[in-house]
Amino acid sequence: MSASFTIALDAMGGDRAPDIVVKGANIARKRFPAARFLFFGDETRVQPLLARYRALAKVSEVRHADHAIKNEDKPSAALRNGRGSSMRLAIDAVGKGEAAGVVSAGNTGALMAMAKFVLKTLPGITRPAIASFFPTMRGETVMLDLGANVQCDAENLVQFAVMGNVFARTVLGVVSPTVGILNVGSEDQKGHEALREASALLREIKLPGSFHGFVEGDDIAKGTVDVVVTDGFTGNIALKTIEGTAKLYAEFLRATFSSSFLSKLGFLLARPALNALRLRTDPRRYNGAIFLGLTGIAVKSHGGTDALGFANAIGVAADMIVHGAIARITEDFADIGQGAIAIPQAAGK
Amino acid sequence: MSASFTIALDAMGGDRAPDIVVKGANIARKRFPAARFLFFGDETRVQPLLARYRALAKVSEVRHADHAIKNEDKPSAALRNGRGSSMRLAIDAVGKGEAAGVVSAGNTGALMAMAKFVLKTLPGITRPAIASFFPTMRGETVMLDLGANVQCDAENLVQFAVMGNVFARTVLGVVSPTVGILNVGSEDQKGHEALREASALLREIKLPGSFHGFVEGDDIAKGTVDVVVTDGFTGNIALKTIEGTAKLYAEFLRATFSSSFLSKLGFLLARPALNALRLRTDPRRYNGAIFLGLTGIAVKSHGGTDALGFANAIGVAADMIVHGAIARITEDFADIGQGAIAIPQAAGK
Repeated sequence: MSASFTIALDAMGGDRAPDIVVKGANIARKRFPAARFLFFGDETRVQPLLARYRALAKVSEVRHADHAIKNEDKPSAALRNGRGSSMRLAIDAVGKGEAAGVVSAGNTGALMAMAKFVLKTLPGITRPAIASFFPTMRGETVMLDLGANVQCDAENLVQFAVMGNVFARTVLGVVSPTVGILNVGSEDQKGHEALREASALLREIKLPGSFHGFVEGDDIAKGTVDVVVTDGFTGNIALKTIEGTAKLYAEFLRATFSSSFLSKLGFLLARPALNALRLRTDPRRYNGAIFLGLTGIAVKSHGGTDALGFANAIGVAADMIVHGAIARITEDFADIGQGAIAIPQAAGK
Repeated sequence: MSASFTIALDAMGGDRAPDIVVKGANIARKRFPAARFLFFGDETRVQPLLARYRALAKVSEVRHADHAIKNEDKPSAALRNGRGSSMRLAIDAVGKGEAAGVVSAGNTGALMAMAKFVLKTLPGITRPAIASFFPTMRGETVMLDLGANVQCDAENLVQFAVMGNVFARTVLGVVSPTVGILNVGSEDQKGHEALREASALLREIKLPGSFHGFVEGDDIAKGTVDVVVTDGFTGNIALKTIEGTAKLYAEFLRATFSSSFLSKLGFLLARPALNALRLRTDPRRYNGAIFLGLTGIAVKSHGGTDALGFANAIGVAADMIVHGAIARITEDFADIGQGAIAIPQAAGK
């Protein structure tokens, strides 16, 4: 059995907290027997929930937090007034080395701001990015940024490309990842100035794998590249458009199978295969966005997810911990810092 | 039977021209018995194809064009050197009143530039936009701009909102359309400056229907609003992300049904319902993007579509003609011009 590791959980973050946080931890516990959990939140609410799961309670500890960050709180206010919040205390546990990673389903902006403040960015990174991976025709593709940085310059995009490349190698196990920049056409003259500048820079610098050039919206699902680089505005729109389209398709399919007696019978026969499809496309499976570029592991779960979805977000953090991802990312960026890839200077800022 | 109308077709535009253009026109002819067609292209290639469809040939005329705009041609070059091209001659036919609309599966940028040059924008419109509609949980939603304008200011976005509103009323028949601006969150402080400014302007001006505020990527498929307004960069990414995700889902479904004997049998039983689903989500059904804001009807077909897809693009043009959409849009913008909505001034430009 591998060495145990601890994950800090913001027990009060998300629409159905603390219930789904405790239930989710119990699901994750079965998958990661080496995991221990530190719950931060309202003790009077978390303890009774935890008492229902004896095996989970054995590997868990609850630390009281007297308030929680609200969804409508601005990141700056959360930073100023949220020092005693469940989210902040969970992040602090990573900062102090008590936990190897933190998972929260709470306010994204507040989590990002506090994680950045407490955990700091890795050397060479100006702005951390939110990354997640998606099912494709070929396997899985990482996309970043998904919403941390609404406006990005070429330098930010180049850093995202390097981080995404490292992530694909360390977490997804792709030996030579291909990287593409999301644009409205594959021709060199397309899109914004920052995209063209980032593309020119990425053609110059040497990353493991290769730079593919520009990709378009449909290339995400095609799996044309292993890493899709974009600014946080476009990435967030693309992420949510994927989620919305997948849900629409699932709803159409549900309606199709209940449209006639024969189709209902057909559904029954195909049910095992359809259940496999549902698992494959279940948005809960892809729940858990990683804040890349920090010295610690911070994972954001969808706020509206259920226990299974939250368990998958814990799984993302656990996978990163088990793979020693931060150490490997740090090493890679140290190599880059030693002159192999001089990003900030190359961008001429 | 309604009065006949003529549609000009760029017979040389698209990956599989002129074959799919002629075949597509033959499919459209059956749906629109009042339609007549003017084909522009290489006579020696188009005439023999047309000869295969006697009924189509009877309502068609071929006009020779000695060259075609290439996909890699820049819009400016197409404008300068493309006067004798099949695309330009087809647009000219609308400009001269010989045809009520033009359809091309060729180079989008060239088509946009030439259509704008020949047909001119409607009074009150600074920049035309590309619009299309999408299936949603509630019906259909119009989104614009899908790629004509990579960068947009608040004034452009407000004009898109007005055009989209008119389109939803005239073509989709929505009496009181709701309009939303695509953003990364629904809160007022989210997103770029231009989005916030456009939102503030749209709260002030009075459109038929109502302004919903900001919507997110998943609201497109949810059908939260009838009209989704966005810049051409974001809109193009969203459009292609929808296409890619839908194709991925269809491919997953195909693989699911061929995964076991029982699932194959289930597929056979559910086939009529699944075929209905396929029709409902067939991207060819939604082929045909409209250039909104011009004095004439110009429709862009997907370059890689087949005859059925091209027929649907012709159908979009025919629907707009049959509904007298341009006259109604012109009237609405004339009303707006009379002071009810003073868009350019309101934007302070």
